Amino acid sequence: MSHPDSISISSGFDSGNIAVTGRDGTTFDLAIVKDHQSDFYQWFHFRLSGAKGVPVTLRIGNAGAAAYPDGWKEYQACCSADRQVWRRVPTDYADGALTIRVTPDADSVWLAYFAPYSMERHHDLVARIAGAPGVVHERLGATLDGQDIDLLTIGEGPKTVWLYARQHPGESMAEWWMEGALERLTDPHDAVARSLRRRATFHIVPNMNPDGSRRGHLRTNAAGVNLNREWHEPTAERSPEVLHVLARMDRTGVDFAMDVHGDEAIPHVFIAGFEGIPAWTEEQGRLYHLFRDTLARRCPDFQTRRGYPVAAKGKANLSMSTNQLANRFGCVATTLEMPFKDNADLPDAEHGWSPERSKRLGAECLGALHEILDALPAKR
Amino acid sequence: MSHPDSISISSGFDSGNIAVTGRDGTTFDLAIVKDHQSDFYQWFHFRLSGAKGVPVTLRIGNAGAAAYPDGWKEYQACCSADRQVWRRVPTDYADGALTIRVTPDADSVWLAYFAPYSMERHHDLVARIAGAPGVVHERLGATLDGQDIDLLTIGEGPKTVWLYARQHPGESMAEWWMEGALERLTDPHDAVARSLRRRATFHIVPNMNPDGSRRGHLRTNAAGVNLNREWHEPTAERSPEVLHVLARMDRTGVDFAMDVHGDEAIPHVFIAGFEGIPAWTEEQGRLYHLFRDTLARRCPDFQTRRGYPVAAKGKANLSMSTNQLANRFGCVATTLEMPFKDNADLPDAEHGWSPERSKRLGAECLGALHEILDALPAKR
Amino acid sequence: MSHPDSISISSGFDSGNIAVTGRDGTTFDLAIVKDHQSDFYQWFHFRLSGAKGVPVTLRIGNAGAAAYPDGWKEYQACCSADRQVWRRVPTDYADGALTIRVTPDADSVWLAYFAPYSMERHHDLVARIAGAPGVVHERLGATLDGQDIDLLTIGEGPKTVWLYARQHPGESMAEWWMEGALERLTDPHDAVARSLRRRATFHIVPNMNPDGSRRGHLRTNAAGVNLNREWHEPTAERSPEVLHVLARMDRTGVDFAMDVHGDEAIPHVFIAGFEGIPAWTEEQGRLYHLFRDTLARRCPDFQTRRGYPVAAKGKANLSMSTNQLANRFGCVATTLEMPFKDNADLPDAEHGWSPERSKRLGAECLGALHEILDALPAKR
Amino acid sequence: MSHPDSISISSGFDSGNIAVTGRDGTTFDLAIVKDHQSDFYQWFHFRLSGAKGVPVTLRIGNAGAAAYPDGWKEYQACCSADRQVWRRVPTDYADGALTIRVTPDADSVWLAYFAPYSMERHHDLVARIAGAPGVVHERLGATLDGQDIDLLTIGEGPKTVWLYARQHPGESMAEWWMEGALERLTDPHDAVARSLRRRATFHIVPNMNPDGSRRGHLRTNAAGVNLNREWHEPTAERSPEVLHVLARMDRTGVDFAMDVHGDEAIPHVFIAGFEGIPAWTEEQGRLYHLFRDTLARRCPDFQTRRGYPVAAKGKANLSMSTNQLANRFGCVATTLEMPFKDNADLPDAEHGWSPERSKRLGAECLGALHEILDALPAKR
Ligand SMILES: [Ca+2]
Ligand SMILES: [Ca+2]
Ligand SMILES: [Ca+2]
Ligand SMILES: [Ca+2]
Repeated sequence: MSHPDSISISSGFDSGNIAVTGRDGTTFDLAIVKDHQSDFYQWFHFRLSGAKGVPVTLRIGNAGAAAYPDGWKEYQACCSADRQVWRRVPTDYADGALTIRVTPDADSVWLAYFAPYSMERHHDLVARIAGAPGVVHERLGATLDGQDIDLLTIGEGPKTVWLYARQHPGESMAEWWMEGALERLTDPHDAVARSLRRRATFHIVPNMNPDGSRRGHLRTNAAGVNLNREWHEPTAERSPEVLHVLARMDRTGVDFAMDVHGDEAIPHVFIAGFEGIPAWTEEQGRLYHLFRDTLARRCPDFQTRRGYPVAAKGKANLSMSTNQLANRFGCVATTLEMPFKDNADLPDAEHGWSPERSKRLGAECLGALHEILDALPAKR
Repeated sequence: MSHPDSISISSGFDSGNIAVTGRDGTTFDLAIVKDHQSDFYQWFHFRLSGAKGVPVTLRIGNAGAAAYPDGWKEYQACCSADRQVWRRVPTDYADGALTIRVTPDADSVWLAYFAPYSMERHHDLVARIAGAPGVVHERLGATLDGQDIDLLTIGEGPKTVWLYARQHPGESMAEWWMEGALERLTDPHDAVARSLRRRATFHIVPNMNPDGSRRGHLRTNAAGVNLNREWHEPTAERSPEVLHVLARMDRTGVDFAMDVHGDEAIPHVFIAGFEGIPAWTEEQGRLYHLFRDTLARRCPDFQTRRGYPVAAKGKANLSMSTNQLANRFGCVATTLEMPFKDNADLPDAEHGWSPERSKRLGAECLGALHEILDALPAKR
Repeated sequence: MSHPDSISISSGFDSGNIAVTGRDGTTFDLAIVKDHQSDFYQWFHFRLSGAKGVPVTLRIGNAGAAAYPDGWKEYQACCSADRQVWRRVPTDYADGALTIRVTPDADSVWLAYFAPYSMERHHDLVARIAGAPGVVHERLGATLDGQDIDLLTIGEGPKTVWLYARQHPGESMAEWWMEGALERLTDPHDAVARSLRRRATFHIVPNMNPDGSRRGHLRTNAAGVNLNREWHEPTAERSPEVLHVLARMDRTGVDFAMDVHGDEAIPHVFIAGFEGIPAWTEEQGRLYHLFRDTLARRCPDFQTRRGYPVAAKGKANLSMSTNQLANRFGCVATTLEMPFKDNADLPDAEHGWSPERSKRLGAECLGALHEILDALPAKR
Repeated sequence: MSHPDSISISSGFDSGNIAVTGRDGTTFDLAIVKDHQSDFYQWFHFRLSGAKGVPVTLRIGNAGAAAYPDGWKEYQACCSADRQVWRRVPTDYADGALTIRVTPDADSVWLAYFAPYSMERHHDLVARIAGAPGVVHERLGATLDGQDIDLLTIGEGPKTVWLYARQHPGESMAEWWMEGALERLTDPHDAVARSLRRRATFHIVPNMNPDGSRRGHLRTNAAGVNLNREWHEPTAERSPEVLHVLARMDRTGVDFAMDVHGDEAIPHVFIAGFEGIPAWTEEQGRLYHLFRDTLARRCPDFQTRRGYPVAAKGKANLSMSTNQLANRFGCVATTLEMPFKDNADLPDAEHGWSPERSKRLGAECLGALHEILDALPAKR
């Protein structure tokens, strides 16, 4: 067992986020740091050292004013000693504070809102996928912090599919989802992937928000801008990430799009559509529901009962990517939401929702797309 | 480049099968050895040494009298230097002889009718799967050569599913399929597997015919018996493999069964049913077609146009496992057939049908079963 | 916990060896089977199924008449559930019987005299090493059972080094040693390997006795012949393995040779020399001791205090390989012996001597050879 | 082939360092950025995107004023497409500019002064090693940027060994060396490691300068301080890294120390001693040379002919760690230097000196230490 005096907390690394505001014995008062130039916060990620065998209480005092306080209800924090397997640890939310109780079984453990996906892993991912036959890897442009916005193009078919993730950088499950989807799509022996690559061309942005990711933000880029409120009018100053991606979309067209997210509050996987867009057609809606129902039939980690309320006719927010794309291109554009908590229909008390489940869901979504692809019209 | 004098051919290993009957320079006359106490033969597996950079002609003179001469048409032999990746090499069939032409890029290469699955790999597989949480591994009894007949039991649900493979030992793709199915079914993070394990109990025999496998047989066990003609009346003397498995099935009942095979002639993946059984019901037939069509919807490596002719009413051969099981238990029992050649609808000139594709198909079949499982009646 | 009725023992696989001679509840009477056409026996290898959680007693009744009864003293049998990690289990020797007591933590476990090295793994090894740059893989000829005798040639230097192992097939640690030596010697980044490959040419026979290996023999080939008593006069009828290897040695010459073995009785790693050969020179002896002492300096798993008695002047048995080679070629030829038990100087109660330690010793022996290579004369 | 217009260069990632100062077609003018608050610079690390198949010229115009201009002579830059294998690419130094010519075979490639070792990999390393039996992982304190200073303690023997690396953060080979040393030292089957752990206790700091590492510095920490000039008088303001480590050394004592570095100019691996320290003893010197000569005997990647000049009697710079430690503790303290270029005695045109060679050298140094450990006096 470590000596309590040696216990410390640090966050000086990729996507690290915490401030230590006080300490009483083995109880630490913590605060999540706001996104730079923004009031959003909810992502935390820190290392706890020197507490092997010591019961430690970690009290995030400003949890109640975080972006989604409902996210803390029945939430269990993620903890890893080896940085590979992330397990849930006892966590309570009361009186505006989130209290995590952990007795580490290792000298150092890492805690996070969700299993992190570092920019180093991002570069490893794009380099690996780029090495698969037939893949083109491009840099669409620079973020405000000078990072590359990476695009992978896969397949040679006439339908145009766009997949993009992590507009909200704290939703790291979205890039785990991408890893699973990219691994399947480039699998030389997978029949679904081979068929998809023949029938469609995939344009994939595994991480829309490198700056927010590295900075440990919840929801915004280096300028404190929520990228998913910029699609009506992105600018080089506020949202170059969206500007570059949308410009490329305008060149390629879009027949199907999926924007991958995590949701703080709802303990389910679900998708959201584009119901209130001005250019809505019944056929668009039918195909959206076909994809949704196909995925639900295939995957017990996906459901259709719980999700977001639907916008009224004409009331869609066109600053959001899927509304914008569905309206702009007349395509099916869906927002996929995975939980920070767990899938309550198929709970895993040990891991909750996890990187591994996110990856498998990515692969399964390609299966659903395979089933409906021929029904989608090709606009060009 | 090697010197031609050093070229040799050997088959003294697990599932090895070839006889060298003559040689003229770098042309070798070969013959496939019949299954012990049987006239069946078509499986070959041998090592070619000392021919790096030398164009070698391998002429299997007795191919025309093999069990399925149609299997040789447009067939390409499998070859590997590293025993992991198996590629197809130029192969012609004419005048009753199969001629393989290969210029090895390694000092030794292995050639086979299909990528082998050794008994060592079998033991590694059952040991590994047995180590997953909740799996029970049993030995049902002994083969005539004294090998174990291995059964893996997975899941805790009320429906009873039986998967068994490689009654015909030369159909090694059937055990590759098993590896893929078992890996998915024991995946702790796969939602389909988790749901299946809750709703069904799986009884899985990855290799029904260890003796034929090790001996390099095409179709029979150590006594020269075709196990898939023994299900009406298995005996300890001729077919202990079937005797032991059927006895266990009688104890567990069967709600769904899949018998995994390879087909020599047809360049497609397909399933066969149990149409002519005496106890046929329309509901059984409907569920069989539901499974078939679900799999076809999901998997571009599976199709429903090509396959075996259907038995007339009451004419089913009850010595075959799926007919026997469908009749005996009133269940859906399907025979899955994978090609030795390729899937002509989604050809892969480099690998043809392959271990990797067999494994992915195994995983995909579980996906189809997931979709239809709730529709299957539980008989007990 | 399994039900005792289901417990069974089988050995129908590569290098399997056991006979069940009786049973009383959970106590099994076993006998090791003699090598074919020989009285030698001591190697055992079998699978115990159906005994999870059941205390089982395995009594090898004919242990006292085995080849090396001293080998049983303080010997602990090897057991594995996953066929990768082999642990020692409680074992006693008394009244001519070896009694192994095990309560398996898995449905099936494998027990063996030492961690097996199958012929499938052998083929995988030679295929893998043959794929490294600059390696030549040859088949020197056929065994009596029709298996290939494999030779790997590595390096381009003027000194001629021969490494060969497993003349005695039950000494499986000898091929594990080979795996370690071959992996290091083909490592493109290892400075010792790179230097050795420039200064010497290595001729390596990873398995001198494939037939005995596959048959589960202790000490002899398919004809019941102890290959290490054939080097004065090998014949095609009795010892083609030696005949082929010695013929190649006569072509290449030998500057340094190592014959890799396991010793049943002595709980230490040691080497034996060639002291009593007719052509003995002091310089040969000095270099032999230089190698020995260099290895001892480097490796705590090697020692020089314990070992075999030294032959008197002129009394060396020239039918043994190292005596024959030292006498025939005037070279340093050493017999390396690893324990079946443990290294008593650095004991590992959990694993005893192990595959992993054998591999690391193989790598370390190359280090010692590197240090003394320049001192060895090149005869050609 | 990519279109030249799409070519870009970025460095917004862990240890990234470059500035683009101009461009003419496919020729880029670059400048290395100075260490923060320092004039040192020589480390570069950037990503080149969009240049697949395009011959690109990268001209680092301020190379001549870098810290070690001699380092550029016969230097070849490191390049990787998969971020795992780093190969050397044609590089020339003339007129104060370093010119790298590369025609990438991938859409993105990474170039660096030496294969980087990111802080993410550092955390993965300490987490993995901390998980080995008997290892204690501590955070000694914080850097100026708020990163942890990690210490691993391994072994239970009476001799006290300190290994520390990467005081100069651009010398990333030093942490690769650590990875090799740590993997060997925690190998449960390696006899040298097992013996070392019994006879000594190792205190290991894999990265003395996390801030410089992450910032892409050559030689200094976040305050622009060269840590290896602080050992006489470290302070919390300038050099907390040294302050914390030296305080712990004062508690443990030091019997043997190795400070791991890279040298820009000399194309060899060598060690430097502590010749001019006031407290010099002949016995200290003898043991230092014993270690040096032992390592040279073992490892063709190490030599003793080339290296640094030796300080005159009493002239040692006690602000440098090894002088300070040898003087303070009367121990053997050595500085190990690996090349950025190659080992000219055993050149590898493809990789030059490399991560893999650094790792193997780390393992080999433990072998040399094993040989001499008993000769070292234990001071406590
Ligand atoms: Ca979101
Ligand atoms: Ca069949
Ligand atoms: Ca022996
Ligand atoms: Ca340095």
